[in-house]
Amino acid sequence: MAKHQKPNANKLITTDLCIIGAGPVGLFAVFEAGLLKMRCHLIDALPQIGGQLSEIYPHKPIYDIPGYPSINAQVLIDNLLEQIKPFNPTFTFGERVEALERQADGSYHIIGNAHTEIHTQVVVIAGGLGSFEPRRPEVPRLVEFEGRGVAYMVKNPEHYRDKRVIIAGGGDSALDWTVFLSGIAKEVTLVHRSDSFRGAPDSAEKVFSLAKHGKIKLLLQSNLHRVEGNGALSHVAILDKAKKEIILEADALIPLFGLSPKLGPIAHWGLTIDKSAIAVDTVDYSTRVERIYAIGDINTYPGKLKLILCGFHEAALMAQSAFKYVHPAEKLSFKYTTVNGVNAF
Amino acid sequence: MAKHQKPNANKLITTDLCIIGAGPVGLFAVFEAGLLKMRCHLIDALPQIGGQLSEIYPHKPIYDIPGYPSINAQVLIDNLLEQIKPFNPTFTFGERVEALERQADGSYHIIGNAHTEIHTQVVVIAGGLGSFEPRRPEVPRLVEFEGRGVAYMVKNPEHYRDKRVIIAGGGDSALDWTVFLSGIAKEVTLVHRSDSFRGAPDSAEKVFSLAKHGKIKLLLQSNLHRVEGNGALSHVAILDKAKKEIILEADALIPLFGLSPKLGPIAHWGLTIDKSAIAVDTVDYSTRVERIYAIGDINTYPGKLKLILCGFHEAALMAQSAFKYVHPAEKLSFKYTTVNGVNAF
Repeated sequence: MAKHQKPNANKLITTDLCIIGAGPVGLFAVFEAGLLKMRCHLIDALPQIGGQLSEIYPHKPIYDIPGYPSINAQVLIDNLLEQIKPFNPTFTFGERVEALERQADGSYHIIGNAHTEIHTQVVVIAGGLGSFEPRRPEVPRLVEFEGRGVAYMVKNPEHYRDKRVIIAGGGDSALDWTVFLSGIAKEVTLVHRSDSFRGAPDSAEKVFSLAKHGKIKLLLQSNLHRVEGNGALSHVAILDKAKKEIILEADALIPLFGLSPKLGPIAHWGLTIDKSAIAVDTVDYSTRVERIYAIGDINTYPGKLKLILCGFHEAALMAQSAFKYVHPAEKLSFKYTTVNGVNAF
Repeated sequence: MAKHQKPNANKLITTDLCIIGAGPVGLFAVFEAGLLKMRCHLIDALPQIGGQLSEIYPHKPIYDIPGYPSINAQVLIDNLLEQIKPFNPTFTFGERVEALERQADGSYHIIGNAHTEIHTQVVVIAGGLGSFEPRRPEVPRLVEFEGRGVAYMVKNPEHYRDKRVIIAGGGDSALDWTVFLSGIAKEVTLVHRSDSFRGAPDSAEKVFSLAKHGKIKLLLQSNLHRVEGNGALSHVAILDKAKKEIILEADALIPLFGLSPKLGPIAHWGLTIDKSAIAVDTVDYSTRVERIYAIGDINTYPGKLKLILCGFHEAALMAQSAFKYVHPAEKLSFKYTTVNGVNAF
């Protein structure tokens, strides 16, 4: 069995499972691994625990965690941390995985971009949507205003209270945030290049209805053209369907054109990549490379839904399968926690 | 779309999904169906909601529900009920499903043993372990003392406080309850026909250690022989390895010899039964019969774990697949609840 150490001076960490990504699914994997006496180290490029929940929408309620009619995203992360506490996981934050080296005995060395080195029996990729980045529209000077009025996701809707907001896009995110922010912002303008929306028909209906009643501005067959401002964003220029430029005063511009994969070095590990996700076998959520698993939003398989609750299930089946690499001489015995509870390490 | 009615005088109920079993997985299926605008009716042979959680261990904490370091079984059921409230499910309790009749249009009529009739587009079997019954050892007069000292499961451990308890069996349940009740009961005797246990090695070790320190009595190579009592159980006779009869005073006898399937008429619906469970396809947890799904502990597939959290995942994928039968003309659009919350019916 692998010996477990806290990060030390030369940054060599030894663990049973190295989990890439410390979001809700990565965290719950620690619990399922712990029940089978496997220790975990988590590495995440973000500076804190919680993945996208803590990074993008810590203050938002989630409604589809089974057993919680509603739960604040950050509270879910806090509860998961409490749940895995008996298994004493260790963490490396703010560091990306740069390299993966297979050892002669089948185990792996993982090397981070700040030279942290992790020796692990099993690799679990739980990178979530954090492994993707927003698609930027081609608008001159846009990058200059990022964090100064331009954002590609809504982290905290309250940030837009009483502001003049321009949203661009035609999918579900653009529609849903237009509806949601129309109740918070001073004014909302939705800019979309076409006449019809890719998003859900009932969301599109709501947007058309809001526009009809003057609650939002809707610019169809229109495109983002220029952004202006002195330090912070102040104006956005739109090209309308007659190719005429309309200049709008704006405190915020939110282009929502979806995500593109940012798998980084993971893309070169010999895994099967299908539609920007890692293909896995639903028997145990293993990839095609032995000892490498992928769970949560980063994986794909027939029927896949990108739901946190599905990642929890994937984590449980992954742990049962990973056991054979960590404790090769032991018989796996499946136990319910209902009778004896959780035995801490 | 199917019209939905509350049970009426002639007991005809019309619904989109008829869910057989109102345990945690059946309840969460209402939520996932509701998000896709499908209405549910649940039918359960038990007299109340909650399945085995409410029936067998309402007062026990569960430790492996993601996001709950510990949750009382009944509280989990109550929370799930709160979560599905916006979708206004209807229920039939205390009634077994007796017959299933396929209609010309592909929909089904389900008929209960108290003549309730349900017309449904889709059938979801979420019968859990409630579709199984405990294996009774062949001991004369045993049935006479059921509920009067003899029980085949531990519903509430507190019931055994300061009592003299005899447990019989060699699997995980027998071992785990022996360990657990040794801290509550006045005395615990474990009777097992062999010298070694089928259950987890570390549980067996704990039992041997308790016996060594005089905390429990351990009778190996021994079998239940007779039960005695006047109204309630008072004595249990054991045949030891020398075939000598040992008579023990006892307030409670708990034979834990596992479960045997009690699928009833479901066994004759043309489903594939594998190891006392219904074989399903992990793409959508459908059975081999169109429009019939099986989720939770009653189903089986490669990698299957009988965990509530796995049933939640299965419910989500089932709902996506069932949609095509309920709303054949509509495009399914997958939506996150994070942005707009849950829209009630």
